[in-house]
Amino acid sequence: MCYYPEQWPDNLWEDDYRRMKEIGFSVVRVAEFAWSIFEPEEGRNEFDLFDRAIDLAHRYGMLVILSTPTATPPAWLTAKYPEVLNAKQDGTVYQHGQRRHFNYNAPIYRELCARIVTQMAEHYKDHPAVVGWQIDNELNCEVNTFYSIADHAEFRVWLQEKYGNLHALNRAWGAVFWNQTYSDWSQVHLTRPTPSNSPNPHQALDEKRFFSDSAISFAKLQSDILREKAPNHWVTTNGMFGHLDSHRMMDETLDVFAYDSYPNFSTIFPDKGERPLLDRKWSLNLSAARDVSANFVVMEQQAGPGGWVNRIEMPSPKPGQMRLWTYQSIAHGADMLLYFRWRTATMGTEIYWHGLNDYHNRPNRRIEEAGRIGGELKRIGGQLLGTKYQAEVGILKDYDNEWDGELDVWHGPLSGKSISGWFKALQRHHIPADTKYIRSSTTLEDLAIYRVLIYPHPAIMPDSTAELLKKYVESGGTLILGCRSGYKDVTGQCYMQPFPGPLADLCGIEVEDFTLIGPFQQAPDIQWEGGSILQGDAFVDILRVTSNNAEVLASYASDYYSGKPALVRNMRGKGSAYYYGSAFTEAAACALIAEMGLMSPAAEWAELPEDVELAIRAHEGTDKRYAFLMNYAYEERLVTFLTPQRDLLTESVLHGVFTMKPFEVCVIEI
Amino acid sequence: MCYYPEQWPDNLWEDDYRRMKEIGFSVVRVAEFAWSIFEPEEGRNEFDLFDRAIDLAHRYGMLVILSTPTATPPAWLTAKYPEVLNAKQDGTVYQHGQRRHFNYNAPIYRELCARIVTQMAEHYKDHPAVVGWQIDNELNCEVNTFYSIADHAEFRVWLQEKYGNLHALNRAWGAVFWNQTYSDWSQVHLTRPTPSNSPNPHQALDEKRFFSDSAISFAKLQSDILREKAPNHWVTTNGMFGHLDSHRMMDETLDVFAYDSYPNFSTIFPDKGERPLLDRKWSLNLSAARDVSANFVVMEQQAGPGGWVNRIEMPSPKPGQMRLWTYQSIAHGADMLLYFRWRTATMGTEIYWHGLNDYHNRPNRRIEEAGRIGGELKRIGGQLLGTKYQAEVGILKDYDNEWDGELDVWHGPLSGKSISGWFKALQRHHIPADTKYIRSSTTLEDLAIYRVLIYPHPAIMPDSTAELLKKYVESGGTLILGCRSGYKDVTGQCYMQPFPGPLADLCGIEVEDFTLIGPFQQAPDIQWEGGSILQGDAFVDILRVTSNNAEVLASYASDYYSGKPALVRNMRGKGSAYYYGSAFTEAAACALIAEMGLMSPAAEWAELPEDVELAIRAHEGTDKRYAFLMNYAYEERLVTFLTPQRDLLTESVLHGVFTMKPFEVCVIEI
Amino acid sequence: MCYYPEQWPDNLWEDDYRRMKEIGFSVVRVAEFAWSIFEPEEGRNEFDLFDRAIDLAHRYGMLVILSTPTATPPAWLTAKYPEVLNAKQDGTVYQHGQRRHFNYNAPIYRELCARIVTQMAEHYKDHPAVVGWQIDNELNCEVNTFYSIADHAEFRVWLQEKYGNLHALNRAWGAVFWNQTYSDWSQVHLTRPTPSNSPNPHQALDEKRFFSDSAISFAKLQSDILREKAPNHWVTTNGMFGHLDSHRMMDETLDVFAYDSYPNFSTIFPDKGERPLLDRKWSLNLSAARDVSANFVVMEQQAGPGGWVNRIEMPSPKPGQMRLWTYQSIAHGADMLLYFRWRTATMGTEIYWHGLNDYHNRPNRRIEEAGRIGGELKRIGGQLLGTKYQAEVGILKDYDNEWDGELDVWHGPLSGKSISGWFKALQRHHIPADTKYIRSSTTLEDLAIYRVLIYPHPAIMPDSTAELLKKYVESGGTLILGCRSGYKDVTGQCYMQPFPGPLADLCGIEVEDFTLIGPFQQAPDIQWEGGSILQGDAFVDILRVTSNNAEVLASYASDYYSGKPALVRNMRGKGSAYYYGSAFTEAAACALIAEMGLMSPAAEWAELPEDVELAIRAHEGTDKRYAFLMNYAYEERLVTFLTPQRDLLTESVLHGVFTMKPFEVCVIEI
Repeated sequence: MCYYPEQWPDNLWEDDYRRMKEIGFSVVRVAEFAWSIFEPEEGRNEFDLFDRAIDLAHRYGMLVILSTPTATPPAWLTAKYPEVLNAKQDGTVYQHGQRRHFNYNAPIYRELCARIVTQMAEHYKDHPAVVGWQIDNELNCEVNTFYSIADHAEFRVWLQEKYGNLHALNRAWGAVFWNQTYSDWSQVHLTRPTPSNSPNPHQALDEKRFFSDSAISFAKLQSDILREKAPNHWVTTNGMFGHLDSHRMMDETLDVFAYDSYPNFSTIFPDKGERPLLDRKWSLNLSAARDVSANFVVMEQQAGPGGWVNRIEMPSPKPGQMRLWTYQSIAHGADMLLYFRWRTATMGTEIYWHGLNDYHNRPNRRIEEAGRIGGELKRIGGQLLGTKYQAEVGILKDYDNEWDGELDVWHGPLSGKSISGWFKALQRHHIPADTKYIRSSTTLEDLAIYRVLIYPHPAIMPDSTAELLKKYVESGGTLILGCRSGYKDVTGQCYMQPFPGPLADLCGIEVEDFTLIGPFQQAPDIQWEGGSILQGDAFVDILRVTSNNAEVLASYASDYYSGKPALVRNMRGKGSAYYYGSAFTEAAACALIAEMGLMSPAAEWAELPEDVELAIRAHEGTDKRYAFLMNYAYEERLVTFLTPQRDLLTESVLHGVFTMKPFEVCVIEI
Repeated sequence: MCYYPEQWPDNLWEDDYRRMKEIGFSVVRVAEFAWSIFEPEEGRNEFDLFDRAIDLAHRYGMLVILSTPTATPPAWLTAKYPEVLNAKQDGTVYQHGQRRHFNYNAPIYRELCARIVTQMAEHYKDHPAVVGWQIDNELNCEVNTFYSIADHAEFRVWLQEKYGNLHALNRAWGAVFWNQTYSDWSQVHLTRPTPSNSPNPHQALDEKRFFSDSAISFAKLQSDILREKAPNHWVTTNGMFGHLDSHRMMDETLDVFAYDSYPNFSTIFPDKGERPLLDRKWSLNLSAARDVSANFVVMEQQAGPGGWVNRIEMPSPKPGQMRLWTYQSIAHGADMLLYFRWRTATMGTEIYWHGLNDYHNRPNRRIEEAGRIGGELKRIGGQLLGTKYQAEVGILKDYDNEWDGELDVWHGPLSGKSISGWFKALQRHHIPADTKYIRSSTTLEDLAIYRVLIYPHPAIMPDSTAELLKKYVESGGTLILGCRSGYKDVTGQCYMQPFPGPLADLCGIEVEDFTLIGPFQQAPDIQWEGGSILQGDAFVDILRVTSNNAEVLASYASDYYSGKPALVRNMRGKGSAYYYGSAFTEAAACALIAEMGLMSPAAEWAELPEDVELAIRAHEGTDKRYAFLMNYAYEERLVTFLTPQRDLLTESVLHGVFTMKPFEVCVIEI
Repeated sequence: MCYYPEQWPDNLWEDDYRRMKEIGFSVVRVAEFAWSIFEPEEGRNEFDLFDRAIDLAHRYGMLVILSTPTATPPAWLTAKYPEVLNAKQDGTVYQHGQRRHFNYNAPIYRELCARIVTQMAEHYKDHPAVVGWQIDNELNCEVNTFYSIADHAEFRVWLQEKYGNLHALNRAWGAVFWNQTYSDWSQVHLTRPTPSNSPNPHQALDEKRFFSDSAISFAKLQSDILREKAPNHWVTTNGMFGHLDSHRMMDETLDVFAYDSYPNFSTIFPDKGERPLLDRKWSLNLSAARDVSANFVVMEQQAGPGGWVNRIEMPSPKPGQMRLWTYQSIAHGADMLLYFRWRTATMGTEIYWHGLNDYHNRPNRRIEEAGRIGGELKRIGGQLLGTKYQAEVGILKDYDNEWDGELDVWHGPLSGKSISGWFKALQRHHIPADTKYIRSSTTLEDLAIYRVLIYPHPAIMPDSTAELLKKYVESGGTLILGCRSGYKDVTGQCYMQPFPGPLADLCGIEVEDFTLIGPFQQAPDIQWEGGSILQGDAFVDILRVTSNNAEVLASYASDYYSGKPALVRNMRGKGSAYYYGSAFTEAAACALIAEMGLMSPAAEWAELPEDVELAIRAHEGTDKRYAFLMNYAYEERLVTFLTPQRDLLTESVLHGVFTMKPFEVCVIEI
């Protein structure tokens, strides 16, 4: 490594750039943790090292994305201004020695960040190699809670702006319960240590909104400077992490969204259940990034074994997997993609987060694989650029329910189960799906592009959202809801109405009674029309039909609720709404896919095996469409092409039975 | 909800009271967390809201139990006087935001509590609806350890009163070991953070006694005021929680004891072992409440699904269970019973601790079930009032061993196992049993009412208790002891005597050798007279007979202690003492029941299946006796009535085979 | 107990000493936690109690080892000087109330320790009974991390001495990564709380070296005083614990090393895997103590059930096990052995750490067993004294890899697995083995006594060690290395070379590619020459042969690396080096034992069953050799003596099939 000037040879990095070009790289990202290099002591700037690196990039025709270095304040900074440090809820202060140990709200940190960003922007704004900026690095990664003194203080300001007066705060937080009523603003804090670690749930929800707003405000501080000082550069950051409304951050601060994709996390944290999707589940994550920005950047694509010294022990990608995951990113909307990282660090906590190169920087199979991908994309990348992922099914999410569900074990854990069940069923039926966040700005137009929307367990359901969903259904859409829908307002308080509250009318049912399934209890049997008995999961809403247009499609078949409705479809306007009284298993999702008659868009031209993912990107306004077929299995899989199809990668025509090798990819122009 | 004056309609709560009356309710409890409503800022009182509620109760003929609101100090109080907050052992202070975050010893908190209690008592002492007071709410629930600065200081005072001088303290705490000797009172504290989290065990025992005394002193502060200011009202509180001598609290501060009964906790924390009793195990808890006060109040009877937002996920009671548990409480001695709660809170941490009403307050099956119970009790409640639970078997416990055993893994875990084994065996043999706490005030008369006393593992055994037990046996009683009995004095130090120390003579044995059974080791085989081989559990005391009146009834049949005595009965005076060298499994308890020839009091008139509990309440001095039969099974069970019996609930005569439905109850006048 | 003067009878302890003599004891250790007795208040000394005890020992002809009492500072000391207390990493201070709650670096504690040691040494230096001193007690037991303010300060001094300037420190810690660069010494600390609890790994390694140096410096402070004040006494301490280079401590401060042996820890923490060695694994621990000092003292030999009040629940040794473990200690090099302890404490945290005596101090089977051993050793001990354990196989370890591997999950966990695999294989083949620490002072001579050296996973491999190992092989030795060898330098940074770095040339291979095996992945199949397929473990190094002298002995037989070399032997000079690309299972070690043709030294005269351990002690320079046969099985085992052999213990000649009882020991003069 060459961090120290005394080690710099004359040809420093020349070989690296030369090899990158050979492989087909055209962009590098640099400087994401380099504050001490730019500002080795307070007020003294040095740009030599990065000037050299960026000049050289330019000489080799490479473009550069510069990161602002605010993810790691220097030791001199945290030593002089300890108020910039973040803290745990119990007040323990995170100290210098790792990364992301700062808070977003300390005025001095915002001031010093603004200064370094300004200085960098001014220095590089006209450099011909620099094209864009990454703000910070992975905002809210590592830690997404903030309890420094500065955060407590700023939360109070945030609440004053939101609620105006304490009476409104007390009502929103239900403070009268357990005598938590506040009589002076100075009594108000972020959640603090309490017996049984059980904070006020409405406060806890507002706290997460505040964490998100703090991060966005921190990003905006930087993007405002960058836009002013370097108006010809675009701005991005790599997300998406907890307690951060990435959509709003995108709207308010970014030109394009970036995502870091490490599908081999699935080897250490596999998705639960009998038939895990493993690395294929990253398609769900990518669909969420795509909802932030339809075409996005993969700023870090896994390029080797990953891991820290003391945690995250990821195996090496198997030969071909790196390429598979690259096409997975592209298939889901990535229009720019960088591998993380070029070299492997020989020092520090990430020595096992391997780059394409091993420590030794000699040829290896990952470099070779990257070169193959580089060649392919040079050839076919152009025609894919700007095409967009095509889906007729949307899985709805929203930040309020996500954040409320972190604390609330009565609805939070249901969503993960049900989205997993639906995603697996859709993937294995080769039905492309979007993740779609419902936001206050979401319109009927946004939703109407979907034939089917699945909103598994929206416990928090403001009237405005209920109204929007009703319009969606009435105008011809199909909406699917699961248990526990519609019983909370935006504060997280419960409606004094029968469930599903503002959705009851749309669904044509009321929840007559309900129970969760205890940890030692049996999941309910559910008898579907047509005869099959499937098991529900985790929760039981016992339904009562209230509309003439509603039809019972499945009923409970065990325990005291045997015979009661479990699944009801209500016809409404041109569409229909389904209410399912439990959490969705993959089997239940499959049964609903059959019930709705949903088909794969590839059904006419191919028979695809379960392990092969289908994704389609298309140009808007033209009939250019590209189908990606990706085999995630460790073994060969057979595809039957019913009609002849041309594979862009091999430039061959496929017809009849075709054997996909492990991790093989086809890009079919359809 | 109607917490806010601006929301109050004219007919506020009228409908609630009307519906309560319909169901058959006659008492409500109110105000348990309402300090901020009574005193919205320091020194300013408001009684309007509760005046209205209580006046209205009176109008509807309902009686009112008022709670003192001290379980939740207001935000203004903890903000101004942070010394009232409780702390974890490591000093982390519990902050405002949940409940029970205060300590009992801060002088200013005691002063402010005294003031609010005085004000409430003076305000309501003559209200015709008010009949009694609940002090605080669930003292020592949530947290039962206290490490604030005020507690450290008060502990020092407590120790000075107990020991007089440091030399006595050093001796009692064995402080010479590991050089812990104190040379100045200022060095003495409650336990604090130590390596391996291992405090001095004698200090840790005294600490728990101190926690208990602190809570009692806090209750007494309030009850003294209530008795002076409201002399016509009775005083109670709802227990029983850790580190609190409920018996002494009862003697010193209460008129009647109250218990909160939530049998569905058993669905998330089932009793361990192959054949759990689940909700039926609450009969053991109720027997402990009964030992505090022979007839007691159930202040909170489970009335729906229970749970906090972030923990305690209890399913809904199945139809009929709420009624079953109501009769379980009554069968075990409850003479007053309130459901928790009327409405379900729509805000705060307990939104899932459902009341009889759902959020919507419309009719539901739980309200209907409560109405059925109300009707029944209106009809038969009168003749049950004042009758007492009848038992010839007592399971002995005491606070010192309970508290010492929390830290001491060499005897503490044995008691839970053995009491569970005995309780299951007795329940399934339909032999009613009491829980009986041995206290310094316990007399031979208190014990002599029992034919059999089981004291599983009394490690701490003062000479006075040993003497009392000897008298009990000599006067005809049967005493059963398990391993690890009698080796500690009241400081928790070990006697320099062969085990079982002061009990050795009574039992006619000495423990020659012993071993615990390691976590990966086999439990010992024990060969009983008559041939069966059962397994011991957890520990092995190898016995040696020392008395001519002693007889070996079972011997070990494995490992190096094979052939050595495992169970010895010693005849003494008119009675006998059994010493069993291991922990009691259900099977061992059954074998001892057979050995002693214990029979169910229902044996003459009924054959009862295992899943049906028998409880008998009787009038003292008359021959009025009522047998409760309660079916806890989820399926039907057959009872055979050998002679005709009248069921008060159905007013029918039962004879021969009778099918009890799931959760069905009979109350037989015998 | 007799801790209090008012309890002292005239014949205090006379009976104890008399009984010890009867059993055959000749040495006692005293005073290890007695600071308050020697110095009940600051500056006032009292020696009466120990004068009496030591005078009495002398009267009974017993020798005395005196402990310095510094393991437990008195309450008056920690109350007056709280800066002497140790702290957790998060700053929580360990308080008075257990033991080992101090730090080694607070100047005032060093001063007070120096004073009490000086006073004791001056007082007892000429006492005829006193022969030696134990410094402190179990340095670094309980806690082996130190984060007090004094430690942070001293760490800075230590680093300044080590690195001279911050630039060198920044380079050694790779501080440029994640912008951790230090610009002023005041910014430098021991590791502190960080997000994800992930410190800088190079700092974390230096920190452990500092902890070790601190402990050694603390020991040296005391030994310097003892050597000056009591020059005729020897000095020891009882180790070996974490973060302490016992070898350097031995070199710099001790005359002989002592070890505390509790083989029944194996009943609560059994070694993992299908065929655990349990108590027999203590032979591995003893071999490490032997590496510190070829003949050592067992200062505490398990003498009964062990345990604290709240943890460490050890069963009682079975009859015969205490004797077995005594001979286990002797067989492995103990020349002096004391039981822990004489009496059982009746107070404090260790009431369950039973001594030979029970609380009652009456005869018991453990006293009887000790007496039997005493008699035997009186008879045969003399001829064993000074003999040394004989081994031709050495298992190499070093402190740097041990400490680095605590944090580093990419090599740390491998060593435990592989050493366990090798140790089991060698034990069950009756091939005695040493544990040998590679240190900077280790010479070729030190290594050349071994025919085979196994260095499982030396990730950190300085060139000097690689050079030494090369010389060892070239001069005829056999070296066995496993995966992950040789990729780090002494700072814990990675070499920019292909693995195994400085060992690549010696091994004749390079690691072409590698992967760890994820937690849900299959271990690799490895096909050995000769046909058997064994499973690798945890990691896969895919090898490429680079030397003409290298031969592939086994290859992977699964996954994408199928067919690639897994085990390569390289002939080099007179010896050979094996590189195995995975972690060693017991089966892999057995296969390598067969491959190398290693035989038991007992093969000529006996056939030994797996459960019997063989150990040989021999006089250097003579042909006197003693073979210890020890049966760890709970059942009888058959040994076949091929030639007649004399058992010193029974003084009988054994020939042909001999039945060893459970826990039986033979000492054969061969």
